Amino acid sequence: MKKTSPAPDVGCGAATLQLHRVAIDTYRENVAYLNRDCGVYRAEGFQALSKVEVRANGRRILASLNVVDDPAIVDCGELGLSEDAFAQLGVENGHPATISQAEPPSSIPALHRKIAGERLDREDFRAIVRDIAEHRYSKIELTAFVVATNQGELDREEVYFLTDAMTGVGRRLDWHEHPVVDKHCIGGIPGNRTSMLVVPIVAAHGMLCPKTSSRAITSPAGTADTMEVLANVELPFARLEEIVREHRACLAWGGTSELSPADDVLIAVERPLSIDSPGQMVASILSKKVAAGSTHLVLDIPVGPTAKVRSMPEAQRLRKLFEFVAGRMGLTIDVVITDGRQPVGSGIGPVLEARDVMRVLENDPRAPNDLRQKALRLAGRMLEFDPDVRGGDGYAIARDILDSGRALAKMQAIIAAQGHKAFDHNAPALAPLSFEVNAAQAGVVVAIDNLLLARIARLAGAPKVQGAGVDLLYKLGERVEAGAPLYRVYAAYPADLEFARQASQRSGGFTLGSADELPHLYVEF
Amino acid sequence: MKKTSPAPDVGCGAATLQLHRVAIDTYRENVAYLNRDCGVYRAEGFQALSKVEVRANGRRILASLNVVDDPAIVDCGELGLSEDAFAQLGVENGHPATISQAEPPSSIPALHRKIAGERLDREDFRAIVRDIAEHRYSKIELTAFVVATNQGELDREEVYFLTDAMTGVGRRLDWHEHPVVDKHCIGGIPGNRTSMLVVPIVAAHGMLCPKTSSRAITSPAGTADTMEVLANVELPFARLEEIVREHRACLAWGGTSELSPADDVLIAVERPLSIDSPGQMVASILSKKVAAGSTHLVLDIPVGPTAKVRSMPEAQRLRKLFEFVAGRMGLTIDVVITDGRQPVGSGIGPVLEARDVMRVLENDPRAPNDLRQKALRLAGRMLEFDPDVRGGDGYAIARDILDSGRALAKMQAIIAAQGHKAFDHNAPALAPLSFEVNAAQAGVVVAIDNLLLARIARLAGAPKVQGAGVDLLYKLGERVEAGAPLYRVYAAYPADLEFARQASQRSGGFTLGSADELPHLYVEF
Repeated sequence: MKKTSPAPDVGCGAATLQLHRVAIDTYRENVAYLNRDCGVYRAEGFQALSKVEVRANGRRILASLNVVDDPAIVDCGELGLSEDAFAQLGVENGHPATISQAEPPSSIPALHRKIAGERLDREDFRAIVRDIAEHRYSKIELTAFVVATNQGELDREEVYFLTDAMTGVGRRLDWHEHPVVDKHCIGGIPGNRTSMLVVPIVAAHGMLCPKTSSRAITSPAGTADTMEVLANVELPFARLEEIVREHRACLAWGGTSELSPADDVLIAVERPLSIDSPGQMVASILSKKVAAGSTHLVLDIPVGPTAKVRSMPEAQRLRKLFEFVAGRMGLTIDVVITDGRQPVGSGIGPVLEARDVMRVLENDPRAPNDLRQKALRLAGRMLEFDPDVRGGDGYAIARDILDSGRALAKMQAIIAAQGHKAFDHNAPALAPLSFEVNAAQAGVVVAIDNLLLARIARLAGAPKVQGAGVDLLYKLGERVEAGAPLYRVYAAYPADLEFARQASQRSGGFTLGSADELPHLYVEF
Repeated sequence: MKKTSPAPDVGCGAATLQLHRVAIDTYRENVAYLNRDCGVYRAEGFQALSKVEVRANGRRILASLNVVDDPAIVDCGELGLSEDAFAQLGVENGHPATISQAEPPSSIPALHRKIAGERLDREDFRAIVRDIAEHRYSKIELTAFVVATNQGELDREEVYFLTDAMTGVGRRLDWHEHPVVDKHCIGGIPGNRTSMLVVPIVAAHGMLCPKTSSRAITSPAGTADTMEVLANVELPFARLEEIVREHRACLAWGGTSELSPADDVLIAVERPLSIDSPGQMVASILSKKVAAGSTHLVLDIPVGPTAKVRSMPEAQRLRKLFEFVAGRMGLTIDVVITDGRQPVGSGIGPVLEARDVMRVLENDPRAPNDLRQKALRLAGRMLEFDPDVRGGDGYAIARDILDSGRALAKMQAIIAAQGHKAFDHNAPALAPLSFEVNAAQAGVVVAIDNLLLARIARLAGAPKVQGAGVDLLYKLGERVEAGAPLYRVYAAYPADLEFARQASQRSGGFTLGSADELPHLYVEF
């Protein structure tokens, strides 16, 4: 079936207007406002919602056009811009600007071929990713790309092309050193804050580990959210570089949008659609790691009934895809398939997770052992990237570093360098309101629903409210008496507490049964 | 791969505010504006761009949220709504309204299954189409549906489910008569105004033909745009019904959005993406015909190198799909595969096409013969739906009706009933500016590019400027001398003329060669 050709590029001359900041926050979507009576609007044949190009101060942005009928919002001769869009031009109110019809992005024919199910080549992906990174795609076009490249629609070579193209459009760091190590988890497991343990351990060993971490998107806490309880995480790049040079590591970073700008744009449609296909996940993760200058990566794929990956064959397929693309990108990768049957540690939410992390670092007897063990094993695998560490010795070295307090000292040095915040893991600043969810009957914990517990923690206010979240009092395989509290929920506001309570009332997220009902543990750790 | 669950429905209590019309035209996209300092905004945990539900006056609309930092646009305690959104509630400024988080549409899990490539059942399509028709889908979700159901992703049973669901959500007309006939073309051929000939012919024969026609979406003229040159086309439904009862036909109608509201919403994303897959085309066309009460349909599928359908096998596959779905819907269909190698008639654009139509009706010797012949053949097929007309006799009956002036009389009656407009086909009101495109060398016309000529006509101003467009002076197979004008372009504004000139300079749209290079004519007419 022939596609009709896209809207004609009329290439009309641009018109000059005075820029006017319209104090409307349209969130990531650039909107231009033009008065309907404005000569430019009529003469240029603009249509509402059509994409326009605005130039001022040597910069150029694309925006969707809204037509205004109130001169108090935007008058004739003015060109209104939403807050974000205005900020992108970096000028004052009244600055002259030109507006013209935006040309359709040149990669649209390639997008159409992908929608029609064709295989794209390296140049196609480069063109598409460049247009995406430069905000030339509308939300509709972005969504079309995400859906058309979803699930099985990309072969492994195409995933490599996509990854390479995403790396190509961003900033790329070079640490002038080898190896540069990193770890990453594909996500989905609440409380899984191993990075904050692994990074100080491998840095204490002397490895360079400039950890790129992110804030939560759909989870109750990201590593950056949790680290922010202990230290400043938003630092200028030059300062971070100094910290990494001095301490071999950092646990900060907001700059992933610079490293993989296309990824940042794609997430804006992937998130509301809850699409997270293998190809897009691999491209997103590996493009950021390569751009951040990593040469070696330990990748954690948790498997479990409520994890992102639910079966061992699925995990193996994903591992193969990561290995293929990493190989083509020149990145050494060690993929570790881990136990994703339940949250890691006890706390879910920034303060609660920071408490768990600090307890492990302090060798506190209350430290959650599963978090400690997982972090040691992952750190061990990373240490084995060191050519001087013999295969199989990594775990013991990591344990020595942790037990000796060298990991804690390294963490304290990183915290001090990034800018210390007051935190007492013996008296963490939890949100003031709380309730407990109790066991309806006695039994052994045979299932914990990662998704539901993450959702309860988010409803309770995490990660926005640092002290909100869920504190688990039992884990898989433990015996619970009837009426005993399974977990405690913390919230700052009555409404949040109520939402969390409603969500926890439906099923609670815990399944009690007999020990032989425990789900099979697929993996080594 | 597991999809993470959609954003939680927090089900929070709604807050009451005063409605305030914000004079911004956001075109089809409902936008709600809330002041950032507003207690409601903070307490309810709204996020910019999140979907909210606004209730007032017993009505309920969904909108995207924009956050405002200027009390002059929206003050605390006010709930701003964009123009369209405000109009949908039918209230005055200051009317109380409540705002709450919108629940995610209940059909989203089915959408996810379709994205993952699964087959959906009848109930899935009903749920999705209902949510779409009720504007519960965001642009992102709509696009995901359109792309996921594109090209080969729907089997014929699913196309039937989609068609049936789209018919189910709209208004459905019942003319209490049998047969109710209609004709439709899948589009793509400029100048193809056969409806304005076929309808008066079959109505003159006494058949009931309440033609549902539309305005141009991406073409230089739709039937409604062309008819509007001759008569009023926007009439209340009750008046149209009277006209149809009295004259057996009408050539008006804006009400397709009532007949297939989901289609109307889907077009908003299909158009910018230029997606027009067989399944969506069949569902869109047949749902509207069934909803309009048609029992018999002649469907025109033009085939040619620059038509929507480019090969005979493709046309046959599409015919089969139309026949299957029409059969399941209880609609009698006669699919006709026609010559789509070039525009039909001479004129492209509302006034030029109205001129051609009136010349055919008046039996004017200047009437384009291809338009006359095609209309007679299509009308003949429709007449054969009459059980009293013998198979094969339709064409001759149609020709008699046309040649005798009975078709013209019927057309004049319809025009008078809808509201006559002054039009003289001997002196049509063409746009004042024009230029000609001349043959670079002598030769026989062996190709005319439908897409390019449509584009030139649109750039010249059609259909907005009724008198703008392209007048073809040669058609396929005709011999042209070097320097002779191939076509003339009309425009109202110098800028439009210039855009059209630029587009015509690149290739002109005509290919001259020798008679044996003429493309094979696939079809009977």
